[in-house]
Amino acid sequence: MTFRVTILGSSSALPTVRKHPSAHALNVHEQFFLIDCGEGTQTQLRRYGVSPLRVNCVFLTHLHGDHVFGLFGLISTLGLLGRRTPLQVFAPHSAEAMLRSHLQYFDAELPYELQVTEVDTCKHRLIYENKTLEVWTVPLRHRVPTAGYLFREKTPPRNIRKELIPAYGLSLAQIQAAKQGRDITLSDGTLVPNAVLTYRPYVPRSYAYLSDTAYSAKAAGLVAGTDLLYHEATFMDADRRLARQTGHSTALQAARAALAAGAGRLLIGHFSSRYKDDAVLVDEARTVFPAADAATEGDTWDIRPRADDTMPASEAVSLIGRP
Amino acid sequence: MTFRVTILGSSSALPTVRKHPSAHALNVHEQFFLIDCGEGTQTQLRRYGVSPLRVNCVFLTHLHGDHVFGLFGLISTLGLLGRRTPLQVFAPHSAEAMLRSHLQYFDAELPYELQVTEVDTCKHRLIYENKTLEVWTVPLRHRVPTAGYLFREKTPPRNIRKELIPAYGLSLAQIQAAKQGRDITLSDGTLVPNAVLTYRPYVPRSYAYLSDTAYSAKAAGLVAGTDLLYHEATFMDADRRLARQTGHSTALQAARAALAAGAGRLLIGHFSSRYKDDAVLVDEARTVFPAADAATEGDTWDIRPRADDTMPASEAVSLIGRP
Repeated sequence: MTFRVTILGSSSALPTVRKHPSAHALNVHEQFFLIDCGEGTQTQLRRYGVSPLRVNCVFLTHLHGDHVFGLFGLISTLGLLGRRTPLQVFAPHSAEAMLRSHLQYFDAELPYELQVTEVDTCKHRLIYENKTLEVWTVPLRHRVPTAGYLFREKTPPRNIRKELIPAYGLSLAQIQAAKQGRDITLSDGTLVPNAVLTYRPYVPRSYAYLSDTAYSAKAAGLVAGTDLLYHEATFMDADRRLARQTGHSTALQAARAALAAGAGRLLIGHFSSRYKDDAVLVDEARTVFPAADAATEGDTWDIRPRADDTMPASEAVSLIGRP
Repeated sequence: MTFRVTILGSSSALPTVRKHPSAHALNVHEQFFLIDCGEGTQTQLRRYGVSPLRVNCVFLTHLHGDHVFGLFGLISTLGLLGRRTPLQVFAPHSAEAMLRSHLQYFDAELPYELQVTEVDTCKHRLIYENKTLEVWTVPLRHRVPTAGYLFREKTPPRNIRKELIPAYGLSLAQIQAAKQGRDITLSDGTLVPNAVLTYRPYVPRSYAYLSDTAYSAKAAGLVAGTDLLYHEATFMDADRRLARQTGHSTALQAARAALAAGAGRLLIGHFSSRYKDDAVLVDEARTVFPAADAATEGDTWDIRPRADDTMPASEAVSLIGRP
């Protein structure tokens, strides 16, 4: 029942010795998803304990090099490691032609299938689902077509309140029906509402990744209620003109997005290399949204399952690993 | 008068947390040359004190990802840093089409010119020269067209023996003529041979980079007398069948190449990740060629100028930096 994200890289376009470009690894129920794939991601996966072979899907937000250039090495390495399972890549338009062109020079004979799905960066759409997870695109405002992604746990099947099975003398068929959400009519004709018989085992969790983007109230609305929001914050608010010109956000704007979304916690990153200390950006964000932190390379943030909404989402999200 | 090489990466195709893929930075008289450019090279340049902007030319041995995938990020970063000077890239056939295709997706509007020169991997040719340096291709034997590179200092102009100027009463014109290699006739008709008046300030230095390749006696011959030879050694000699199948060398074969070339010193690298300890490969090489070392990431090897051939090349080459 894991739901956690590991920051593999969070620099902006110019990587430094201490900071790799964008890449986050998301573990949902031991299924691994990669969000963005800047240069060096394959090594960062290994460094932080995720086997590259375990990556199910890659979600690229946009075709800028600092979000993409690690994919070439990862694709090759998976071939050398003998992967057979298809690798799904979700990315904006041109990704397929770009990758096919690339492959013809480098990896014409991969032992696995590379399945590229181009996403519509103007629409909020369900683009991927498995048994427990849905992934939705979130239109963003950047210089090139860009999609954020919302990773949302599906509503789990309801659990039966075990103590009520003997009390009502429920049959196996009635138990199954109740788990599927149906009300139950007992042999004496009494109707027992489903809400009495069952409970939701946990509140579905979610993680939203919004980068790169200028401030977008619409995007914040689309990820409303997310437990953990990653929002880019390339600039300080004093440089908001520069942010607007380049299609980026300031730390203050990222915090406003978190506030508008009613997020549990906020991570900010993609800081311009002009700022020598991440703390100034975090401090700025906290003036508006106190539960803000820097997306620091190597950190793992965990979202614990909550039985119900009485526990605030902010308390369910915690930093569980720092190298 | 610097002539030194810094190892930026030396892993084989599967990089690890401790080892980056192939890339060497060569500094010849404060002109910087990059040989191969595996993923992460731009960061490795910074880590080891070479500004990416100072790279004059890039020499790619072959179009396998572990020798190339860092070029995409480097090209982008140089654009972001506002480079105006053209960047020359020397590489085997297909490099130009591959890079042009790549650029149309990522860096269509670079502020500098990318000049791609495709080299003939079957010929030993002078492909680049400046005031002090020549670069020659060395045909190699790999699974795809591959060129090694020989970096050779040009013969410097001869220096005049200052003490002879008053002794022979040389005029300024006579001094200039002597520096250009001519004999001098004094006013009394005496002929003074140039070899008496002048001396070679130093023996031209050279660095040869042979990777990836199966053992090639021809390649060893083409780099005969090189002060420092980097030769790939992907396998131990016990695995020489695997080496042959994959177009690679063993540590023993690399040592034999150094011996055949009469190299001053040997660096070996590109070790398969199957070997957990570089020392076993170095030990194997030393059984045949004692002046052998591992090409260890971050190491800088310096070749000091030698006044004449009485000092063995092996003594002029030394490790001057290890992080």
